[in-house]
Amino acid sequence: MNRPSGRAASQLRPIRITRHYTKHAEGSVLVEFGDTKVICTVSAETGVPRFLKGQGQGWLTAEYGMLPRSTGERDAREASRGKQGGRTLEIQRLIGRSLRAALDLTKLGENTLYIDCDVIQADGGTRTASITGATVALIDALAVLKKRGALKGNPLKQMVAAVSVGIYQGVPVLDLDYLEDSAAETDLNVVMTDAGGFIEVQGTAEGEPFQPAELSAMLELAQQGMQEIFELQRAALAD
Amino acid sequence: MNRPSGRAASQLRPIRITRHYTKHAEGSVLVEFGDTKVICTVSAETGVPRFLKGQGQGWLTAEYGMLPRSTGERDAREASRGKQGGRTLEIQRLIGRSLRAALDLTKLGENTLYIDCDVIQADGGTRTASITGATVALIDALAVLKKRGALKGNPLKQMVAAVSVGIYQGVPVLDLDYLEDSAAETDLNVVMTDAGGFIEVQGTAEGEPFQPAELSAMLELAQQGMQEIFELQRAALAD
Amino acid sequence: MNRPSGRAASQLRPIRITRHYTKHAEGSVLVEFGDTKVICTVSAETGVPRFLKGQGQGWLTAEYGMLPRSTGERDAREASRGKQGGRTLEIQRLIGRSLRAALDLTKLGENTLYIDCDVIQADGGTRTASITGATVALIDALAVLKKRGALKGNPLKQMVAAVSVGIYQGVPVLDLDYLEDSAAETDLNVVMTDAGGFIEVQGTAEGEPFQPAELSAMLELAQQGMQEIFELQRAALAD
Amino acid sequence: MNRPSGRAASQLRPIRITRHYTKHAEGSVLVEFGDTKVICTVSAETGVPRFLKGQGQGWLTAEYGMLPRSTGERDAREASRGKQGGRTLEIQRLIGRSLRAALDLTKLGENTLYIDCDVIQADGGTRTASITGATVALIDALAVLKKRGALKGNPLKQMVAAVSVGIYQGVPVLDLDYLEDSAAETDLNVVMTDAGGFIEVQGTAEGEPFQPAELSAMLELAQQGMQEIFELQRAALAD
Amino acid sequence: MNRPSGRAASQLRPIRITRHYTKHAEGSVLVEFGDTKVICTVSAETGVPRFLKGQGQGWLTAEYGMLPRSTGERDAREASRGKQGGRTLEIQRLIGRSLRAALDLTKLGENTLYIDCDVIQADGGTRTASITGATVALIDALAVLKKRGALKGNPLKQMVAAVSVGIYQGVPVLDLDYLEDSAAETDLNVVMTDAGGFIEVQGTAEGEPFQPAELSAMLELAQQGMQEIFELQRAALAD
Amino acid sequence: MNRPSGRAASQLRPIRITRHYTKHAEGSVLVEFGDTKVICTVSAETGVPRFLKGQGQGWLTAEYGMLPRSTGERDAREASRGKQGGRTLEIQRLIGRSLRAALDLTKLGENTLYIDCDVIQADGGTRTASITGATVALIDALAVLKKRGALKGNPLKQMVAAVSVGIYQGVPVLDLDYLEDSAAETDLNVVMTDAGGFIEVQGTAEGEPFQPAELSAMLELAQQGMQEIFELQRAALAD
Repeated sequence: MNRPSGRAASQLRPIRITRHYTKHAEGSVLVEFGDTKVICTVSAETGVPRFLKGQGQGWLTAEYGMLPRSTGERDAREASRGKQGGRTLEIQRLIGRSLRAALDLTKLGENTLYIDCDVIQADGGTRTASITGATVALIDALAVLKKRGALKGNPLKQMVAAVSVGIYQGVPVLDLDYLEDSAAETDLNVVMTDAGGFIEVQGTAEGEPFQPAELSAMLELAQQGMQEIFELQRAALAD
Repeated sequence: MNRPSGRAASQLRPIRITRHYTKHAEGSVLVEFGDTKVICTVSAETGVPRFLKGQGQGWLTAEYGMLPRSTGERDAREASRGKQGGRTLEIQRLIGRSLRAALDLTKLGENTLYIDCDVIQADGGTRTASITGATVALIDALAVLKKRGALKGNPLKQMVAAVSVGIYQGVPVLDLDYLEDSAAETDLNVVMTDAGGFIEVQGTAEGEPFQPAELSAMLELAQQGMQEIFELQRAALAD
Repeated sequence: MNRPSGRAASQLRPIRITRHYTKHAEGSVLVEFGDTKVICTVSAETGVPRFLKGQGQGWLTAEYGMLPRSTGERDAREASRGKQGGRTLEIQRLIGRSLRAALDLTKLGENTLYIDCDVIQADGGTRTASITGATVALIDALAVLKKRGALKGNPLKQMVAAVSVGIYQGVPVLDLDYLEDSAAETDLNVVMTDAGGFIEVQGTAEGEPFQPAELSAMLELAQQGMQEIFELQRAALAD
Repeated sequence: MNRPSGRAASQLRPIRITRHYTKHAEGSVLVEFGDTKVICTVSAETGVPRFLKGQGQGWLTAEYGMLPRSTGERDAREASRGKQGGRTLEIQRLIGRSLRAALDLTKLGENTLYIDCDVIQADGGTRTASITGATVALIDALAVLKKRGALKGNPLKQMVAAVSVGIYQGVPVLDLDYLEDSAAETDLNVVMTDAGGFIEVQGTAEGEPFQPAELSAMLELAQQGMQEIFELQRAALAD
Repeated sequence: MNRPSGRAASQLRPIRITRHYTKHAEGSVLVEFGDTKVICTVSAETGVPRFLKGQGQGWLTAEYGMLPRSTGERDAREASRGKQGGRTLEIQRLIGRSLRAALDLTKLGENTLYIDCDVIQADGGTRTASITGATVALIDALAVLKKRGALKGNPLKQMVAAVSVGIYQGVPVLDLDYLEDSAAETDLNVVMTDAGGFIEVQGTAEGEPFQPAELSAMLELAQQGMQEIFELQRAALAD
Repeated sequence: MNRPSGRAASQLRPIRITRHYTKHAEGSVLVEFGDTKVICTVSAETGVPRFLKGQGQGWLTAEYGMLPRSTGERDAREASRGKQGGRTLEIQRLIGRSLRAALDLTKLGENTLYIDCDVIQADGGTRTASITGATVALIDALAVLKKRGALKGNPLKQMVAAVSVGIYQGVPVLDLDYLEDSAAETDLNVVMTDAGGFIEVQGTAEGEPFQPAELSAMLELAQQGMQEIFELQRAALAD
């Protein structure tokens, strides 16, 4: 098997995490998985949504978007079409669930964190890059909130990151780019904690169904790749 | 462990599949997983969406809805709110992908099949019931299309069905009802073919992350349960 | 004149009213006028809309919908089109006005009742079936509220029911099914109380105008048919 | 009984019909029923909606709106709220059905007529004023189309007009203004042809149900009033 | 140069300002610039938008619309399309800014003024006519509020009016009608106060860019025309 | 006068224009006016909108957006609110008109160019930065189209750029940043061609009206600043 990218089956793309990418947000990261580039910001606001009022806990919610020409063909702007598409909603719900899993919301105080992941260039794996980058931005935002005295303890329970795996020409491969993703038989997105637990596992047969053994192989490959990604997050945070 | 439902960990709810439930649709099924009741209809229309014009193949798309008071608390009607929520879009995209996996679209001719899954009573597992019931309605609809001479062969490649599994009080359990689902630590929806392949695997940690061994146990339990469900589909079709 | 249904001019379709049809709602009825089948639920919520706050009275509002393939041709789902059509709004406003006429809202307490009428199979007369079935569901819901101690007396002033009449091939006929309705020259929907008063009278010339004498004949026929319908409501409630 | 307006029970408000009120439309009328003022325009466009393509006939459709401060309290502008309300849709559907009854659409040629009724001052009876005024504008528009050679004969079958009647303090009264309408027990809108046939009859009990005898009395009163209104239309057209 | 209208380059169209045009609004003016006719109403409501709560000041906001057939070709009704177009939003934002410039909002008390400008016939210059007419309606509305004792002083700081200028066949001309506007190389809208200050200057090259000298000439012409318009406003208010 | 930025009254912020910023678009520029950063892409598609079909010319249209946290306070995402705000529509209409002024559309062939300006960090002057950056991206896109043989000549008529000026503490200043803009009495946006003509002039009094002499001074200052900006565009294109 030769991956279009020339990478080994278990090789990640070059991953770069640039902190403090924009100046206004409490946390702001540019995350790059190869040519996939996503701006992840975390905005903190005092107060919580109505359904959490008076419970002394915080909330985190996420939104996702793609610039219209982040892709090979221009996609109509969702703001001018007047609604977010199903794929967008699905991804932003996934990002929100994943990032909430990193936090103990009772220690966040009555604050709401808005995660915004905006893809400025897409080349496969935008949702896994978003989760990986947003976690770093989240940690920066928590440091800002701590300085403001807005927290009730340390809400961070664990690091969260994500990666995709797939079956390409019968072989499990890690971190698919767009070309590989388009040709893959199966696509599996995995969100994990640095303690080794799963937050989300979403596998889809693109053509033929995948077999239990293939699923096991993909999960194992994802777990390996995640270790490298957690290293990269830690390195970025250590700068 | 005592399931609220009193069922054994690997025990399905009573599943009933009533064919020809309404009179207008090419396929129409009432599917019941315990107290979860979904009307699944399949409507055939001549022609395909623009992006498939002139390619000689067919298409299948799905929509999902819940009657406002199918649930314990009334939910606002999506038609009057003016949009479908993220959960609805996510489920109907899942149903569509799953049912398309049952078909060879090139043998469908230039026809579009609309799957409509409308929940009239909800008690957990509405998406898995929908997929299971819609597959039976789809087979009935294909028979109607065959009689009309509208097909280019037999488009049915395989049966498709779905079931949920979860971790409840530390134990993997099959086919969660609403009470169990609300209290489960992890929720995993599995869509499979009767040949034993996976179409979709979607697992979400509701509270704590789930471990690789738990994932394996859940997947195994799902595979067992699926065999019974395929039996029930076949029995319904044999009537 | 031979009605397509073979019925006599003054003959209703078989009407069935099944109470407690779904388990969550305070009131829940499946009403069938021949092949027209509508699920009517009544949901009670504490509180009233803003314009009634602090007046010590309750409110009742209604929504109506059709499953996409409840009809001969599939209709686009209103939730995915992003708005309810004019016909839907017109019918749900009619249902709301009619049901409110059954109640003394000052005895309802500060509660809001949501009537949901969802057509699962359509064969003409869905609005009249909805009103007839919803009234029975309403009475069941009031009994639940009474048990909860939420009422300030008995809000039920009178029974309400509805039926359609029309001019078919020059002859006034009762309770038109879809085939008859499509071919009728005039269509008149009548909502009445069991005390013999009119709540709504809505007559429309489909082709030629109708004459005063025809209007009188239709009104008389409707009044006769209503007596049978009130009997059927009472019998259902006596079960 | 003393009507707030001081009119006799069977007395219409002063009705004025000003033709050629604006300069661009094929037909343009300002109609006044007392203080109720509506601009009715008829716009002709070549072509018909998709569902009528190739059938050699024309179409007529209507839209209705109220200026935000045409009423005693300002109503939010429907364009900025992003949708037309149920009342608006109900009225414009009524206007459309009523005006179509005036025409033989097969003689209209493949043209579409848009009726726009915009209320600039409201004082009760805006829908009946709209129908009455739009009929005159329609006749003017047909004359323009005839000159253009766009018709296939004379599409006008009959004049159409409308009036409201009600029960005020137990007495049937004609052509209710806003004060009377607000206090009336029953409100009945009647659309008729100048040949004496009914196009629409819509009666609603505002408080107590109305009795068959009251309905007869209201219908009789409406029929009388309509004769005067047809006279006024004819006089306006004779100018 | 011969203007299509036959006017001299610095000649305004006949301008008419009819006060008290409709009966419900606190201020109501029909303003006519030649064949351009706009109904401007001012509606006063107690209270202010959330962002101004508790600051002891008032607010003014504006909305603009065109009747569908106010123009040569019928435009789709914005209420039925479900949104206001970009041009509409741009104009109503301009009207709002301009009218707010006339007021000291701190003296308005906690009241909100809604300006509604609805074009019933369009022939160029609808936005400048709207601003000119709405100012007169505003002054009438302030008088009503003063009588009601709702003001905290006299909020009126200055008169505001507007006019368009353009370059037509190389010559600066005042107050363009539709024909002139369509053929003009440049279009400049100017909003001023009666003390001679500018509120807004909006110039757009329709074809070729305009030169600094042309801009100066247009601004000078606008300033001259404004003097006449302020005279007409004052005369209308003196009636 | 001391500008918050410490700049001289006629001093621009550091302006950087980075070409080929993203990889998919025909033209792609990151433009920075100080801390204001905008991604400008130009996407070419074959074909033109319906109103230009068959006329042998091309079209250019623009869209504008801000990432939710490009600003000091997070703004709700327009895609999830379901519509673009009035300010957004106003700016994208301005960008479109300005860029079309750079082109001879008849030489563009039947192609449509989509300009997307997305603000990733806002610090005042986003619309003028957008126009300035998009012009450079446009020229890059035309070179790509020329290589593809899609053009009918050289559509570029002239360079276009934009800058803001204002009155700050009574003194005309160039290129306002957010702090200066918030405190300015007047804000004037100027779009020009490199030949010295005006495309757009939009001046707004934020507080007090501005005087004719102030307008002249601001226009002069803008014209000076534009020369530097055209230099910067040319330098970027020469790289």
